[in-house]
Amino acid sequence: MALVVQKFGGSSVATIDHIRKAAEVVARSHAAGHRIVVVVSAMGDSTNRLVKLARETTSSPSTREMDMLLSSGEQVTIALMAMALRELGLESRSYLGSQVRLLTDSVFCKAHIREVETARLQAYLESGGVPVVAGFQGVDAEGEVTTFGRGGSDTTAVALAAALGADECQILTDVDGVYTTDPRVVPEARRLDRITFEEMIELASQGSRVLQIRAVKFAGKYNVPLRVLHMGGEGAGTLITFEESDVEAPVVSGIAFSRDEAEITVTGVPDRPGAAAAILKPVSDARIAVDMIVMNSPRDGCVDFSFSVGRDDFSQAHKLASAIAAELGAGEVRGNPEVAKLSIVGVGMRTHAGIATHLFETLAGEGVNVRMVSTSEIKISVLVPENVLDTAVRAVHKAFELDSLPAP
Amino acid sequence: MALVVQKFGGSSVATIDHIRKAAEVVARSHAAGHRIVVVVSAMGDSTNRLVKLARETTSSPSTREMDMLLSSGEQVTIALMAMALRELGLESRSYLGSQVRLLTDSVFCKAHIREVETARLQAYLESGGVPVVAGFQGVDAEGEVTTFGRGGSDTTAVALAAALGADECQILTDVDGVYTTDPRVVPEARRLDRITFEEMIELASQGSRVLQIRAVKFAGKYNVPLRVLHMGGEGAGTLITFEESDVEAPVVSGIAFSRDEAEITVTGVPDRPGAAAAILKPVSDARIAVDMIVMNSPRDGCVDFSFSVGRDDFSQAHKLASAIAAELGAGEVRGNPEVAKLSIVGVGMRTHAGIATHLFETLAGEGVNVRMVSTSEIKISVLVPENVLDTAVRAVHKAFELDSLPAP
Repeated sequence: MALVVQKFGGSSVATIDHIRKAAEVVARSHAAGHRIVVVVSAMGDSTNRLVKLARETTSSPSTREMDMLLSSGEQVTIALMAMALRELGLESRSYLGSQVRLLTDSVFCKAHIREVETARLQAYLESGGVPVVAGFQGVDAEGEVTTFGRGGSDTTAVALAAALGADECQILTDVDGVYTTDPRVVPEARRLDRITFEEMIELASQGSRVLQIRAVKFAGKYNVPLRVLHMGGEGAGTLITFEESDVEAPVVSGIAFSRDEAEITVTGVPDRPGAAAAILKPVSDARIAVDMIVMNSPRDGCVDFSFSVGRDDFSQAHKLASAIAAELGAGEVRGNPEVAKLSIVGVGMRTHAGIATHLFETLAGEGVNVRMVSTSEIKISVLVPENVLDTAVRAVHKAFELDSLPAP
Repeated sequence: MALVVQKFGGSSVATIDHIRKAAEVVARSHAAGHRIVVVVSAMGDSTNRLVKLARETTSSPSTREMDMLLSSGEQVTIALMAMALRELGLESRSYLGSQVRLLTDSVFCKAHIREVETARLQAYLESGGVPVVAGFQGVDAEGEVTTFGRGGSDTTAVALAAALGADECQILTDVDGVYTTDPRVVPEARRLDRITFEEMIELASQGSRVLQIRAVKFAGKYNVPLRVLHMGGEGAGTLITFEESDVEAPVVSGIAFSRDEAEITVTGVPDRPGAAAAILKPVSDARIAVDMIVMNSPRDGCVDFSFSVGRDDFSQAHKLASAIAAELGAGEVRGNPEVAKLSIVGVGMRTHAGIATHLFETLAGEGVNVRMVSTSEIKISVLVPENVLDTAVRAVHKAFELDSLPAP
């Protein structure tokens, strides 16, 4: 008999019909002998509806009042879910974050969990009940309602799983698992049975939208086995787990990509301490998020300094870079607002040489011009012209044998 | 500087526009130097929308889950109202029933208030803030969310006013006060400047829908001056207060009426102990609410026993009465499903003889046949044929000089 936390996101509880189907998934797991804790988000677009009401009321809503407002969304879902479970003959009760209690700091709208009290849930689980907990919300030491920001329901699920020592935390969503890459671009994309936390974090931050990166990090930190599976409950989904050294990990587990990137290169920057910082400072002062940063070795006392930003910020960033380049006595400022980022991710990469070479050869073979490169322990990202991104993703997917099933 | 509780009902906060206007009323009172505690209901028909969702989910929702569900409605309004007040430059914060705290028993869906903690509100009021409290909801000793049933927001307002020792509890609604009778039937109906709690209770229970009777009783019990006024804040409304013996109270303060009544008379009931109970028992066992009960003195060892029920229950009640009449060896069972109830209410009635005579003469003068009479200390109710109700109300309104202003 396992203890499982099952989290249903907004699209899985968008209507009463969805809630009923989700309740059936829970009931099946319960009937299979497991103890279940359910976590739910607000129904469908109800959070957006509430945000709209706040915007109509005031241009600058207090964060405290936003939390009071938004947390009502999950409250509706927990009550309906508990009713649906009772309708199926289960003993079930809903719990607010403040009732569990999920204690947080007092940073409204992006609170962090400090402590999860479990006595109440434990007692109810032991009595055979199925608690339904409101995702996304907690309570601070003064009894103020707080929320965790976007994706906060995943965080609730993971935090409860960690505190209860659950055997698994399941995220039930509208996809049936984590894929080697986006199946809309590569029809041969395969669902992964397993992926490590580190890989998942890289995939999530590189544009895979299955799980919120914060929840994944949280799960990794507290050793909570996390499984992404379809809201219908069928299939095994993808288990996000720790790197198991006795298993031969595939070299590359998946490919993430994001469009709408832009690159800026300042050439001929005098190679002296502080030059890089001087270029980036006005950009970050303007609250423009900088993603990749690349600087090669100096040549003739100068370096070329490149960075990427979101496309919306391109023209402003270009202007700021040009101004500072003139000030520094650098050379030309080049920019390209139509690039995309492709990342290959895999823990196996650490121990396998030649991955980057294989990647570049593959891209070259497709005539794709790589514009910028950045690497981490388990990831290589490249910027490519956006119009060849799909071709590039498909070629790389095939080159790293992600199309075929791994060896048994 | 007075302390005033201002309660806005669902229709006064139905849209963001309404909420903004309500906030302006609060801001004006605050600018006039008063300390204000705001209580709000759920927006417009949002409670009905939530009830509908519950009905779609299950045919027999748990009362605990209903309270969890419904209390989310007020949560939305308090946050938006606090935002609207802040937008007007006031310092404002929203408070759930569980945060105040409004401690109740554990009877879900119709909880009773046990204790109102005021420390948190007091401190906030003293700092110059305007607290906005969710109506209709409380919390039990175990931290479970409870609600007070229909009209519960009025109860919240009165309970807070009592606990805080407020100078006045204002109920802002879509009418501008309590009238001598329904202005749709009697165009000459007048707004009352003052009315006693006892009169208000009789008027409320006799079909005046301005205030929930439970809140009025509560206000009476705790000596909270209650004022009904228009949600726009204009006018003095009607102050519901204690009987002031030094003031010459008008004999009759108002006329209430309700349609959709039905009467049943069992004739020739043998006059022996228990006969009345025997007739009523099957009716009450069938959960039919009996309103008026009239039994006159026995004649020839028999009595006629009459009672009134709601029109929907007429045929069932008639059948039950017929069965028991046969069993008791009574006479005929007569029924009339098309009657209405007219009640005159006034504390002055106690000391004035001849009120009933004046009422009956007035009705007789209009050719209205009075079918059943029942009286209390400050009220006389009569059943009349429904088709002459409007005529009767107008005639009585004029006869008791309710059309004209009271002597100064």
